[in-house]
Order: sequence, then C-alpha cells, then structure tokens
Amino acid sequence: MTTPPDVLRCAYTELVVTDLAASRAFYVDVLGLLVTYEDSEAIYLRAFEEYLHHSLVLRRGPVPAVAVLAYRVRAEADLALAEAYYRELGVRVERRPAGATRGIGEAVRVQDPLGFPVEFFHHAEHTERFTQRYDVHGAGALSRLDHFNVTTPDVPAARAYYEGLGFRVSEDIRDNEGTVYAAWMFRKPTVHDVALTGGDGPRLHHLAFATHERHQILHICDHLGALRRPEMIERGPGRHGVSNAFYLYVRDPDGHRVEIYTHDYYTGDPDNPVISWDVHDNQRRDWWGNPVVPSWYAEASAVLDLDGNPQPLVARAEAREADVTIGADGFSYTAGEQGFKLGQQV
Amino acid sequence: MTTPPDVLRCAYTELVVTDLAASRAFYVDVLGLLVTYEDSEAIYLRAFEEYLHHSLVLRRGPVPAVAVLAYRVRAEADLALAEAYYRELGVRVERRPAGATRGIGEAVRVQDPLGFPVEFFHHAEHTERFTQRYDVHGAGALSRLDHFNVTTPDVPAARAYYEGLGFRVSEDIRDNEGTVYAAWMFRKPTVHDVALTGGDGPRLHHLAFATHERHQILHICDHLGALRRPEMIERGPGRHGVSNAFYLYVRDPDGHRVEIYTHDYYTGDPDNPVISWDVHDNQRRDWWGNPVVPSWYAEASAVLDLDGNPQPLVARAEAREADVTIGADGFSYTAGEQGFKLGQQV
Amino acid sequence: MTTPPDVLRCAYTELVVTDLAASRAFYVDVLGLLVTYEDSEAIYLRAFEEYLHHSLVLRRGPVPAVAVLAYRVRAEADLALAEAYYRELGVRVERRPAGATRGIGEAVRVQDPLGFPVEFFHHAEHTERFTQRYDVHGAGALSRLDHFNVTTPDVPAARAYYEGLGFRVSEDIRDNEGTVYAAWMFRKPTVHDVALTGGDGPRLHHLAFATHERHQILHICDHLGALRRPEMIERGPGRHGVSNAFYLYVRDPDGHRVEIYTHDYYTGDPDNPVISWDVHDNQRRDWWGNPVVPSWYAEASAVLDLDGNPQPLVARAEAREADVTIGADGFSYTAGEQGFKLGQQV
Amino acid sequence: MTTPPDVLRCAYTELVVTDLAASRAFYVDVLGLLVTYEDSEAIYLRAFEEYLHHSLVLRRGPVPAVAVLAYRVRAEADLALAEAYYRELGVRVERRPAGATRGIGEAVRVQDPLGFPVEFFHHAEHTERFTQRYDVHGAGALSRLDHFNVTTPDVPAARAYYEGLGFRVSEDIRDNEGTVYAAWMFRKPTVHDVALTGGDGPRLHHLAFATHERHQILHICDHLGALRRPEMIERGPGRHGVSNAFYLYVRDPDGHRVEIYTHDYYTGDPDNPVISWDVHDNQRRDWWGNPVVPSWYAEASAVLDLDGNPQPLVARAEAREADVTIGADGFSYTAGEQGFKLGQQV
Repeated sequence: MTTPPDVLRCAYTELVVTDLAASRAFYVDVLGLLVTYEDSEAIYLRAFEEYLHHSLVLRRGPVPAVAVLAYRVRAEADLALAEAYYRELGVRVERRPAGATRGIGEAVRVQDPLGFPVEFFHHAEHTERFTQRYDVHGAGALSRLDHFNVTTPDVPAARAYYEGLGFRVSEDIRDNEGTVYAAWMFRKPTVHDVALTGGDGPRLHHLAFATHERHQILHICDHLGALRRPEMIERGPGRHGVSNAFYLYVRDPDGHRVEIYTHDYYTGDPDNPVISWDVHDNQRRDWWGNPVVPSWYAEASAVLDLDGNPQPLVARAEAREADVTIGADGFSYTAGEQGFKLGQQV
Repeated sequence: MTTPPDVLRCAYTELVVTDLAASRAFYVDVLGLLVTYEDSEAIYLRAFEEYLHHSLVLRRGPVPAVAVLAYRVRAEADLALAEAYYRELGVRVERRPAGATRGIGEAVRVQDPLGFPVEFFHHAEHTERFTQRYDVHGAGALSRLDHFNVTTPDVPAARAYYEGLGFRVSEDIRDNEGTVYAAWMFRKPTVHDVALTGGDGPRLHHLAFATHERHQILHICDHLGALRRPEMIERGPGRHGVSNAFYLYVRDPDGHRVEIYTHDYYTGDPDNPVISWDVHDNQRRDWWGNPVVPSWYAEASAVLDLDGNPQPLVARAEAREADVTIGADGFSYTAGEQGFKLGQQV
Repeated sequence: MTTPPDVLRCAYTELVVTDLAASRAFYVDVLGLLVTYEDSEAIYLRAFEEYLHHSLVLRRGPVPAVAVLAYRVRAEADLALAEAYYRELGVRVERRPAGATRGIGEAVRVQDPLGFPVEFFHHAEHTERFTQRYDVHGAGALSRLDHFNVTTPDVPAARAYYEGLGFRVSEDIRDNEGTVYAAWMFRKPTVHDVALTGGDGPRLHHLAFATHERHQILHICDHLGALRRPEMIERGPGRHGVSNAFYLYVRDPDGHRVEIYTHDYYTGDPDNPVISWDVHDNQRRDWWGNPVVPSWYAEASAVLDLDGNPQPLVARAEAREADVTIGADGFSYTAGEQGFKLGQQV
Repeated sequence: MTTPPDVLRCAYTELVVTDLAASRAFYVDVLGLLVTYEDSEAIYLRAFEEYLHHSLVLRRGPVPAVAVLAYRVRAEADLALAEAYYRELGVRVERRPAGATRGIGEAVRVQDPLGFPVEFFHHAEHTERFTQRYDVHGAGALSRLDHFNVTTPDVPAARAYYEGLGFRVSEDIRDNEGTVYAAWMFRKPTVHDVALTGGDGPRLHHLAFATHERHQILHICDHLGALRRPEMIERGPGRHGVSNAFYLYVRDPDGHRVEIYTHDYYTGDPDNPVISWDVHDNQRRDWWGNPVVPSWYAEASAVLDLDGNPQPLVARAEAREADVTIGADGFSYTAGEQGFKLGQQV
C-alpha cells in the first residue's frame, strides 16, 4: 500500500447553511467565534487560539449540509501522497488550486471510502492569534477546533480505514457479542480528531470546539437561556464517560450539531491505554448517568459529494446503541443485577 | 394577633435515616460535611462556614422521615413570642429544655399549621468555623445550609402563614387562571429560607446547602460517577430560572433529597422585586430548558408529628405543575405559538 | 440618644472624575458596569443584579474626589430619624429633594463625624435587573456593590460612631498593645458595608463590587493585560485573610481604587464570631502571604465637604500598619520565632 | 550527524530530598500526587492522568539535588540511537538495565552537553490511570507532568543542542541587542517540554505539573495558607505572558521549585508561530505586570553528575534578566516612554 499522507489534525469544516445572518448570530454572537472574512456568500471563522485563516466556513446554500471535512497535513509533499493513496483506494480524487477555498493553499479533495467529502491541505494563510486578546474574549470563549464526529454504518470498517491513515484508537464502545458502536481516533495527542459513531451514514454527527474551562461552557447555556432559545441546547452540559470531557451539544439554526468540549487527556504516547466501554454501561455517554436525548442518536447532518449533491445514506446493519440502551421510559439506565461494568483500560 | 418571633433564618433539619453508616458515607464522604459529634444513634453535621453545633442531624430510625425543621430566632425572648404565637394559632406547642437536641439551647417546638414539625431556638453551642480550613475542604466543599423546600397542598395558604411569621416572597410560579404552584420566601436576604412547593403534604421536598462556585457542584457529580452511583444524581446540574441559582439534586441512601445550590442574589431591600413565572414558561425550573425528571415532582420525604408518628398527607386540590407542563413524551416543553413568557419583575 | 435611621446597606458612591470618556472606558468597557443614564456631565452605573437606578455615579470635575457615600435606609421615615440623629451629633445636615441626584428620592446628606460626605435615602427609581441577561454579561461580570472602605485616623472612634448607627464588627486587625489598625462593619449580613482603615483621613480607600466566582476577577486582570494597561492592577489577585474574600484592586484613570471581591461569608446571626487578627500575622491581608504593595497603604481618594470643597486631612496618631509590618526588603513577613498567630474567633 | 532518538516528551524527574516524610507531606498531602510505590529510601509519584509508574521520584539523600531528568522515547530502538548520538557528542553515556530505576525499563543515561543528568527510556510499567477517580481527586488535583525548566548560561547554545534533538522553539525572550534570556522548547504539542532559562548552570529551575482549571491552582495557595505555610508560595498565582499559562510557583521543603500550570496552547503544527518577547516588556513574565520576586531569578536546584556528585556551576556571561528589568524599587516595570512592546508573532 502507498504511504498515506502525514495528517496533523482535523482542521476545518465547511457547512452549508440556509440563512447566513441567522448562522452568524449563532456562531459569532453566541459562540463568539472570530470572523476572518465574510461576504454575502460565506463567513470564515476561527476560535481564539487559532492562527490559520479559518476552522469553520459557513456557506449559503439551499439545503443544510456538510460540504467538506478538512485535515491538515504536515508538508506540501503530503498532497501528492494523499492523491496517490486515494487513487489506490479507488475513490474520486480532485486537486484543488490554492485559493479554491479562501485562505487555503493547494489541496487534495476526495470522496473517502466512508462517503465523506474530505480535504487534505498543508498551506493556509496566517491570521492574528487571539490567545491573549482578552479584551474580546467573551464569557464563553472557544479556544480551537477539537474534533469531528461522523456517523457511519460499519464502525470496524471505518476504524480500519482511519488506521490506514495513521489514526489510532483511544476509546470505543462495544458489547459482549463483539458489536462495536463507536470509536474515537486521533492524530494530535488528544482523545480524538475524529469519532466514528455507528448509524446510517455518511452523515456528520457534530463538530466540536474546545474551551479552557467548564464555566465557559456553562455560560453558553446561560446565554441561550437569556436569548430565550433553550431549545438550541440539545444535550448536556455533562461529563462524558468516554474521553472524560465536559460537554455540551447545541444545534445551530439549520440543525447542525456543535459540541463544546473541555478536559480530555493526553494520548500521545504510543502505548496510550485504549479504554473499551460496555454499551450497557450507563456512564459511558454521561458519567453522571443522565440520559442521552433521542435526537442525539437519531439526527445528523447530510454530507455532499464532490459535486455538491447529497450523498445517499447506507443504513446501519448492526444493533443500534439507542435501541440497546434506551428503555420504554425514555431513559437509558440499563444496569443489570450485576450493576455497571467499568470501561476497561488495557 | 400576637407578635411573631423574629426568625433569623432556616437553621437545621433532623432526618431519620435507616442506616447511619450508609448515610455517613453519603453526607461525610461524598458531600464533605463536618462531623461535630456522632454516636451510635445520631450524627451532627455542619458545613464549612457554620459555627453553630450543626445544621443537619441524622438520627437512626426504622423509617426514613423528617423529625424537625428548625429556625433560629434573634433572641432568647423570641421563644416566648413563638410559644404565644403558636398557641394563638391553636396548634400543638412544646417547650424543650436546653440539650433536648444536642448542642441546641432551650427551644419551642410546634406542629405548624401546614403540618410540619418546626422548632424555634436561639442558643446553640459554637464550634470551630472551618471557613479557612482549606486543608480539609474537598473539591466539592459546602459552605452553609441555604434553605428548606416543603411540599404543601395549598400554596397561597402556606404563603399567608409564612408572611404572618415575617417571611417575604422573592419569586413564585403561577398561571393565568390564578393558580399558584410554588413560592419562595425568605428572612435572611437570599432568595429563600423556605420554598413552598404545591403538592400532597406535609412533606419535605428537599433541604439545600450552598457552595461558593459551580465547579464544586460539578465535582459532586463526578464523585458520584466515580463511585458508580450515578443514580444518586436525580436532577441537574442546571441553572434554575427561579432564583437564578446553579443547582444539583441528589438523593441520600434513604431517598431524602438534597440540593446543592449557588449563585442566587441579594433580596434584603424592602422593595426587592418579586418575580412571577408563568407555569408554562419552560425556563422557570431550568433556565436551559432541560426537563424536570418525574420523580422530582412526585417524591418527597414524610414528616413526623411531635410524637414521632408520620403525618398523614393532604392531597393537593389544585392543578399540579407536573400535569400542566409535562407532555406525553416525558419532556416539559410547553411553549405555545406565542413562545415563552418571561417571569415578570415588579 | 435619638434612634438612628435603620440602614439597609451601602448603596452608591459619587466619584468626581476628570475625564468622563476615560472613566467610561474603564467602568463600562473593562469592568462591564451597565449604564442606566449618561450625559455630558455624569454617568450613572449599576452592576448586573442591581435594580436601583445606580450604585455608582461618575461626575465630571476638575479634581478627582469623592462627592458622596450613600446608604439606603429601610423606609422613608428613616430620613427624619437621620436628620435628627445627625443634628444631635452636631454635624452639618442637609435635606435634598427627590431628584437632586438623578434616580434618587428625597435624601438627607450629612458631613459625618469622621468628615465624610454621607447620604441616606430610601426611594430610588427601579430599572431592569440584569441578573439573567447573560447575553450581555461579559467574562468579568460584576454582580453588585459590596462595600466602601474608608481611611480614618482613629479606628476605635470611627467604630464607635458606626456602632451608634447600628453597624456591627465582623473582623478587625489589632496588636498586643491595644492599637486597632482596621475594622470591618456591616448592616447587610456580609463581612462589611464599610471598612475602617487606619490612616490619614477622611479619604476613601476604595469601593468594592462583588462577582459570583473568582474566574470573573481573573478575567479583569487578563483584560487589562490585553489592553496593555497592567499598571491599573495595583494589588492582587489574592485571597484575603480578613473576610476570606478573593480580591483584586484596580485603579481607575483618576486613581480611585476599586476592589473586585467574592467569597466572603454570612454574618447575619447576632452572635456571629468576631475575628481579631494580629497585625503581625502576615496572612491577615493576604492569606497566601503575598506582600501588600506600598501604594495600597499610602494612597486614597480625597473626599469633598457638602459644598464640594476638599476636606483637610487629619493625620493618624497611632502606629501605622505599613510601618509595623513592612521590613526593609519591601516584604511584609514579620513572623517571629513563634511563627504566626491565627486571628481569634470569639 | 547521527539520527537523534525520537523524544516523545519530558517524563520524570528524580529529586534528592533530605527528609522523605517532609517531602511526602508536601507532594502527597498538599499537591495530592498519587503514590505508586514507597519505601524508606524513595517515593514514586504520579499525577491523576498518568499511567506510567511515576513522573516524580523523591529519593532520600544528604543534600538537595536533582538526580536525573528523564525523557520518554517513542520506541525501544531509540535507546540505541540515543547511545550513539551522545557518544558522538562526546559526553558520558551509560546504559542502565531495566529496573535500575523502579518501574522503568532499559535506559540510556547521559551527562548532556549542558551538564545535566538526562535519561532516555521507552518502557515503563503501567499503573491505573486515575483520570476519573474523582473520589480521590482533591480540590487541587494535578493532571500530569508538563515540563522541566533548566537554568543554563548560554541560551542560544542550549537551544541549538535541543534543536539537534528535534525540539522546536515556541517562544523566547530577547532584547534589541540580540541577547537571548530564555527559550521554550517542545516535542509534545504544548508550549514546552523544556524551558531554557539563562543563568548560572546547570541547575534545575523548576519542574511543572498541569491542572485542568485555575481554581485547582488557587486551592493549593489556600491550602498552604491553611497550613500556615504561605512562605512555600514563592511567586504567583498569575498569568504568564510567555505561554499564556496560569501559574503558581511553590517551593518544596528542600527548596526545589514546582510550578503548577494550566491554559497553555496547542503548538503541534509545523508552522506554529514563534513568539519573541522583549525583555523590557513587563508583561512577558506576568501578563498582569506583577513583579517577579528576586528569589525566582536567583535560586535553583543543584544537579548531580552520573556518579551522584554535584555539578560545578558555569556563570552566565551575558546580561541577566533580573538585572536588566528590576529597578531599585524592587519592581520590574521598565516601560520606557514608548510604552510596552508586544511579543511578536511570526
């Protein structure tokens, strides 16, 4: 097999949104992202510690969707590796000239084997890093993009694909019968750059930004409460079992899901212990045992192919996490007589 | 009418618990309360900023219940006022000698018109105030008792009774038809010393301790998660609409409900604006719109009469908050076409 | 002696500032106070949980000074009590009609026995309370005015005067020879409404606003750092020994000192233990032993008489805290062989 | 030049301490580190998110010193690379068998060109990772070792040496004449694994542990205050200009300096902008402009050679940061007429 490109980390997402002003109110006024550039067609956003041109592009379009998930590679030479690697995989591959996306250099865009529109780039314009611009940090300041979470029918297959790209698993959710429900995979030494969530796909489950502290996440809840838009808070705040991160899931005006996330851990050593959680462990998704809301399992954003057409969905064939863990009462407690089983650390 | 006693604040609760060791593990090991004294029959507890002998007594008994809710009065002379006041109300009144409850001076105990066993005392033994004993503060340090919340069938009647005692209302929950679902009343200048929750009563809905910051509340959740006892977390953490407090409800081993609470506001000026919330405002109980769990509406602790026998319940005759706000899906969103109505500030 | 007025709490300050725009940049843009009203002569400010018209007035004038310290009284009838009380004390007393200060009702203004211009009022216009307007809370949100700190030569005399007004002492700083260096006195049940700092007076040492949490105070430091104005941070952040509060002292563009303060404790019970700190206990002013900067001891704001003329200073006759505690190395460690002595709780 | 070993990160320090019980009281009881193993000669400690046997060894000895600074390498094969690399550098190199240090596999130990005893290892015993053991996390929980800071006379020479090992610079402190006062260098994508501080060396300036949030650092101050040991707090808490980290410096019973550190930023992209600070920028060491205490510049821990003998010091020849930035008044403000110059981001 050809050498894969050396992926540094997840780097940016382009979302298609139907009302640019409404999206701006959410991402800029509520989440506090910085605008690097905007015009009548798109807004380019970044978080306070980011110095590349953007980590999120909002582009006006007729139907909410995900136009691309972009990974940064270590060097310009990795673009040729990416091109060769995906041609060998037999998927559609395109070279894009510098500036095809504003602020981004030459890139390779593919329709990956899981059906996602994925871009690899190295060069990007630098902008001012606002790490210490506390004069403009709001009470809910976001530091940086942390990860993507994608919904895909076959988690082991998706894991194998990402391992081929050099990603490693930090944690997963399984059952005793061998079904894998989800896996967390990383290049940068955090719990993940991409999470694989078993379900009908390809869809984007969510993208996630990191904060430094939990009160910044709580403020976003308070802020949405003050705007009388609590329905934009979908799930949380809470503490994940998986990743140990403190989390919040909000939904943007088009229903794209954004996680705000902090407190995960360093995974950069090669023997970083993999933690496998039992799907019946009620603390895997929320360490405090609070139920996962049904929409969180069911809904996700459509993704586009390289021509901008929605990708058809492939249904998950294996058992679905929501089905095996949510009872008739709408709660997810499934502790048996034996109580809970702790996620195992290798 | 006789002058009522000058009540300073809610001061302590005595809970009957069935397993003193299990209760100790919860209140001392998890919540971090300090033990002033303990023997085989009872444990006397206080929070870090309290210098009276206790703010909570756990007493071993056959059935979980509330033995007394105690208010501190300004002076010893208020005991005579209390005695006369309640005799005039025609309820049962008892004088208790100093030491009848360890650490507490002479007291007047009554079965109040709402059916609760209530004590008034002034004198109490002083103990070391651990405000700055950071060497023993845990990550979830509790500062002081904040309030009682009692379940009573007729909220306007209960409010009138407490107004007679000199309490004032800070906030309430109503509907357009004039039904009052709950009211918050205070003597010390916080949102409440006692909350009146409409429901079958007399029962104790919960007692509440204050922390300084929200992360201390979050730690209690994390701690219970680490103990693999997430089911002890009943509701929250969240931000109340009413009171603006950040909250968590946990259940002790006997099911007694304890709230951990912070961030309410100063109410001590005589024209402090009363905030009335519409019962259909989905942010009244949780500013973020997260649903109230059914048990929170349904369950509460039995209270004893002055002979130690459980008080019979009187059913609420008026509409119940859970019924008017929780839909068939188990969620409490009830925003109509007109959206939410903000609690009004006078 | 005549009955004193029933003082509720410290309520507002009027500062004379030399550059209204510069002061606005500090109090509104950095500290985040809300503007209730402003014109070319004055700005009326309040914090997020305050519903009276203002807790701070900035008035344009030629020389920085304090025009008035205002206390709110319980009822309109307390104005007559105040007038009689101060006439009996033999100091200058003036009645002021409603509106003499914008937003404030009828008032009694006196030159108090310590030489300060002090106002008593009951009525004030109500404005919207922004407790839950999290959409406008910044990362350093201030909740409410907490206290005044006044510099006065004779602390025991000042204490006696304030005890006459019904204030009680929560904590003080003394030495073994009987010298009192400072005392903290309250009406509302916090550690203080007014602190008495021994020194040449009358001068205002500082006014203080409260926050809910410490990170809000830290943000103000970060914010001033981002503005490249670190010299506006005079002392802190730190933890006080006295009061246990987490603190920060900043200086406004005219040098008026503002403290940002959180985490003190409830003092409302009549037997609240008084804590006396030894002036040689190096943790009294900073629990972490960090040195007090010399300017904090030396500088304070001039106060005006009722005609608007600066009050002459009376020098402190007794030992000065800075002299007895700061050594030649600029640090205040004065532990003897016996180590530190803890502030005593009665 | 031979290929250097692939260093993952700073991994552990061995400190010689004179009173093991006193050191245990500090590192275990105050800082809350976990004991993996202890006997009468040594204590092996780790922080809550660490799964290797230890990140700190305290070994009983006659004189306080640093016995080794250890880096982890990616693979066992890197040991041979390390051996060859340092032999080529002409410094003393030793192979150490597995277990020479408890819990650590085979290792290469060198006396590096800067004079420090440095170890490279790959294999280490795994222990339980306490990430979610919130039942034992204290209020000041430390997550992981973050970095070493070494004092060395010639910073450019030390930088060149570490660049040879594959470290990159994130930030430095310079003046207009070209003198380099300090540099921060990393392998894992944080601001540093090792900082180079210009001064008489070789000495260890400090080792640093990370927390998740700032309140955990503040608690350590409060805790030392409660123990009446504020003199163990040497500097801070504060916000660094360099690194943007929130910091605290404490001194252990032997004077070894430990930093508690949080909030730095991701540096993992190859074009991560280097920030150069002007030595005259008063916010470089403390973003809030608070002065650096003289001991922080002057004192550091002696290091041993591979035979356990103290290394002689080489004096710094270039200008010293303390001299160029601290005025006669003990404060470090050096803003000239032109004000401050911001650290430049490339």
